[in-house]
Amino acid sequence: MKIAIFPGSFDPITTGHVDIIKRAIPLFDKIYVAIGQNSQKKYLFELKQRVDWLENVMSDFDNVFVEVYEGLTVNFAKDIKANYLIRGLRNASDFDYEKTISQLNNIIGKGLETVFFISQPEFNHISSTIVREIIKGKGDVSSFVPESIYLDLKQKYYIS
Amino acid sequence: MKIAIFPGSFDPITTGHVDIIKRAIPLFDKIYVAIGQNSQKKYLFELKQRVDWLENVMSDFDNVFVEVYEGLTVNFAKDIKANYLIRGLRNASDFDYEKTISQLNNIIGKGLETVFFISQPEFNHISSTIVREIIKGKGDVSSFVPESIYLDLKQKYYIS
Amino acid sequence: MKIAIFPGSFDPITTGHVDIIKRAIPLFDKIYVAIGQNSQKKYLFELKQRVDWLENVMSDFDNVFVEVYEGLTVNFAKDIKANYLIRGLRNASDFDYEKTISQLNNIIGKGLETVFFISQPEFNHISSTIVREIIKGKGDVSSFVPESIYLDLKQKYYIS
Amino acid sequence: MKIAIFPGSFDPITTGHVDIIKRAIPLFDKIYVAIGQNSQKKYLFELKQRVDWLENVMSDFDNVFVEVYEGLTVNFAKDIKANYLIRGLRNASDFDYEKTISQLNNIIGKGLETVFFISQPEFNHISSTIVREIIKGKGDVSSFVPESIYLDLKQKYYIS
Amino acid sequence: MKIAIFPGSFDPITTGHVDIIKRAIPLFDKIYVAIGQNSQKKYLFELKQRVDWLENVMSDFDNVFVEVYEGLTVNFAKDIKANYLIRGLRNASDFDYEKTISQLNNIIGKGLETVFFISQPEFNHISSTIVREIIKGKGDVSSFVPESIYLDLKQKYYIS
Amino acid sequence: MKIAIFPGSFDPITTGHVDIIKRAIPLFDKIYVAIGQNSQKKYLFELKQRVDWLENVMSDFDNVFVEVYEGLTVNFAKDIKANYLIRGLRNASDFDYEKTISQLNNIIGKGLETVFFISQPEFNHISSTIVREIIKGKGDVSSFVPESIYLDLKQKYYIS
Repeated sequence: MKIAIFPGSFDPITTGHVDIIKRAIPLFDKIYVAIGQNSQKKYLFELKQRVDWLENVMSDFDNVFVEVYEGLTVNFAKDIKANYLIRGLRNASDFDYEKTISQLNNIIGKGLETVFFISQPEFNHISSTIVREIIKGKGDVSSFVPESIYLDLKQKYYIS
Repeated sequence: MKIAIFPGSFDPITTGHVDIIKRAIPLFDKIYVAIGQNSQKKYLFELKQRVDWLENVMSDFDNVFVEVYEGLTVNFAKDIKANYLIRGLRNASDFDYEKTISQLNNIIGKGLETVFFISQPEFNHISSTIVREIIKGKGDVSSFVPESIYLDLKQKYYIS
Repeated sequence: MKIAIFPGSFDPITTGHVDIIKRAIPLFDKIYVAIGQNSQKKYLFELKQRVDWLENVMSDFDNVFVEVYEGLTVNFAKDIKANYLIRGLRNASDFDYEKTISQLNNIIGKGLETVFFISQPEFNHISSTIVREIIKGKGDVSSFVPESIYLDLKQKYYIS
Repeated sequence: MKIAIFPGSFDPITTGHVDIIKRAIPLFDKIYVAIGQNSQKKYLFELKQRVDWLENVMSDFDNVFVEVYEGLTVNFAKDIKANYLIRGLRNASDFDYEKTISQLNNIIGKGLETVFFISQPEFNHISSTIVREIIKGKGDVSSFVPESIYLDLKQKYYIS
Repeated sequence: MKIAIFPGSFDPITTGHVDIIKRAIPLFDKIYVAIGQNSQKKYLFELKQRVDWLENVMSDFDNVFVEVYEGLTVNFAKDIKANYLIRGLRNASDFDYEKTISQLNNIIGKGLETVFFISQPEFNHISSTIVREIIKGKGDVSSFVPESIYLDLKQKYYIS
Repeated sequence: MKIAIFPGSFDPITTGHVDIIKRAIPLFDKIYVAIGQNSQKKYLFELKQRVDWLENVMSDFDNVFVEVYEGLTVNFAKDIKANYLIRGLRNASDFDYEKTISQLNNIIGKGLETVFFISQPEFNHISSTIVREIIKGKGDVSSFVPESIYLDLKQKYYIS
């Protein structure tokens, strides 16, 4: 069984995340989209909200499941018997960080393998960090998050 | 069927290539290790030699096949019905080039998907370019190429 | 009318900023040097001090105006009818961030165009971050900030 | 008078080049799109062909002129009284090279100023180098070159 | 006398740090491994603990001394008459930061020279930041810190 | 004895090279500035000319010697009993290449250690490649090469 974990904060989920998941689906039997919750980190959206959005978006896909975990990703990967980690790469400045993390996960996770996808041109400039800034500034995020999330954001946060 | 192509010049195959292939095997039903031959490019080793070495090393793995092609990788991928392209990434300076190529292959190859693996620390400094330089300088490449290739190189090219 | 905005924290303004502004002046009819104030961010110098310094330095130039804004830069650009954004680039590690931001500003700002200048060799190692660290350590910043600011810093902050 | 030079090989001109030129037009009184010809360099397309294509595409724009020059760009800039140089930046790996060249042009060109535009997401993966490879491989370049060039390429070079 | 300072937080010391120090020893008459203490920064380990670990590890080497300082590194370098600063470089994303800092130290430190070593492949993915994350997650850091530190961590922090 | 080699093509020597050598001198007992000659590579200046220029410039320094070698740098380092290799780093795009080469030299050279210096701001944009281009274009290289070389170039190559 090829089981993969796609970890992140998903604060909030973006169209960039959805693109990576869609492209990863055919390669794996099961994908866990997993929110790594860190009690010392501040998030713009509450955990429950982030889970709801993820579940809403992931309900379109078979074999994709939403989870929440605390602590090291490698430990959670072990718990759910994941043997693969999925990561998206956007640009060269991500690279050295992702390389270090993937090499460490391989060592600590005793063979946990990371598979990378490079984001498509139309998603390359989209990140949760950017989306949060636009939301805070009440800007238009309609092209950066899935449509259902956008409608929800509009209603709840009065963004344009 | 998940069919992948791992294209390259393999001039010569290195332990870095072998590592990527080994790690990719469990994800695919078939992997074609394919030498992209370009009549205008100069190689250190003749095509026949490179094919022999690849076949020698790949004989250890089921479902891995050695091929030679000319022209665009996407066209050959189509011919062999490959829907995935495998690439190894070593460092940040590779990244922008690999990103551009993978985005183009996706456009021209009508959905041909590239899956990336980042090289492990022990193979991170190994490339065919480097190995060729050491061979030309009669240096010791024993830790950079598969053992059988090393023995062959030693015998045929009188390297140390 | 070509109206440009040069946004920043200017905490404090450096000789690097002044160089970019000088080089941008001939290209635009008006330049707004605009302090983007963020109530959640901590600054070393108070807003009033930063505005005073900017106004002092900019008084040498015609058609350059100092402003303060809150919220998204694109919104303020719209308010002041700016159609250009000016940014300095110092090194490759700035690049991917600046690229993402400029692409987003173009989308959200509906055509707001960013024009980049690369810093000259003598200003390449100067940033507000660095200048703040030297000030905190009571080091000599005479070659990193405009002379009038240096004299003011020396008097008010007892730096060497 | 703000006169700019946009130098390159244009072997061939791409939609990426056209995007940069369109965005630069409002900033300058005149733009010279100038082919830097180097007798020791090999081109895929002959000079006359490259000039014809440039003139064809640039005929849509007022105040944009096509020129050919040999030798240093700064010398030609002086000849045509250009005080600005326009460059597009695609990714972080271009950056250090472009920085060095622009700093040198400023020194040798006695104040020749380089203004940079970062390519839009939809053109970010397009370069003449890539387009040449696709043409050599008889691939589809319809989304990478201006339409008239594409039709011409199709007819003359039998590409798909 | 060639006196060098190797500054850092050492929160905690890693095998990567030890490798750099070992390689630097033959070049200098004296090396001060110096903890730059910043009262506004949060550390995972207390100063006393970090000093103890450093002294424990450095006791193996002649001419290597452990120190603590506050304020600018250049000022402390002057106090201890160090004319060299030692830094390790791990990857391209460190580079621009280290370059800026070294150029500034040279200016402010009136000739203080920085000598760089690039980390060996087996230490390239090791940083204190990473080690802290693993410790917080109760992961295995045995291959990332000196053995004596590992044993101490295991006993005091109940990590695996 | 600390013996270092500073290898290069020196086609031609630049003020950037001289800066690195000057800064390295106090650290070593002897420095060999060594021209790595490669019969398959084309140079702008003949070997004899490059040696003459190097010897002219290095005559100012004690304990610095000019040599010529062929083949791998590690082999020549062994011949002259050098235990250190000196390299200058200019920017992030050099980094990954220099890292790979230094790691390999350490492996093949059985402990040959590379010590890096980052170029000072005023030399950061200077490279032999750039200088050659300016010379070919008959541009002014007076600020990029040592004065004696500049005078010689002016006389022999009729540059401005």
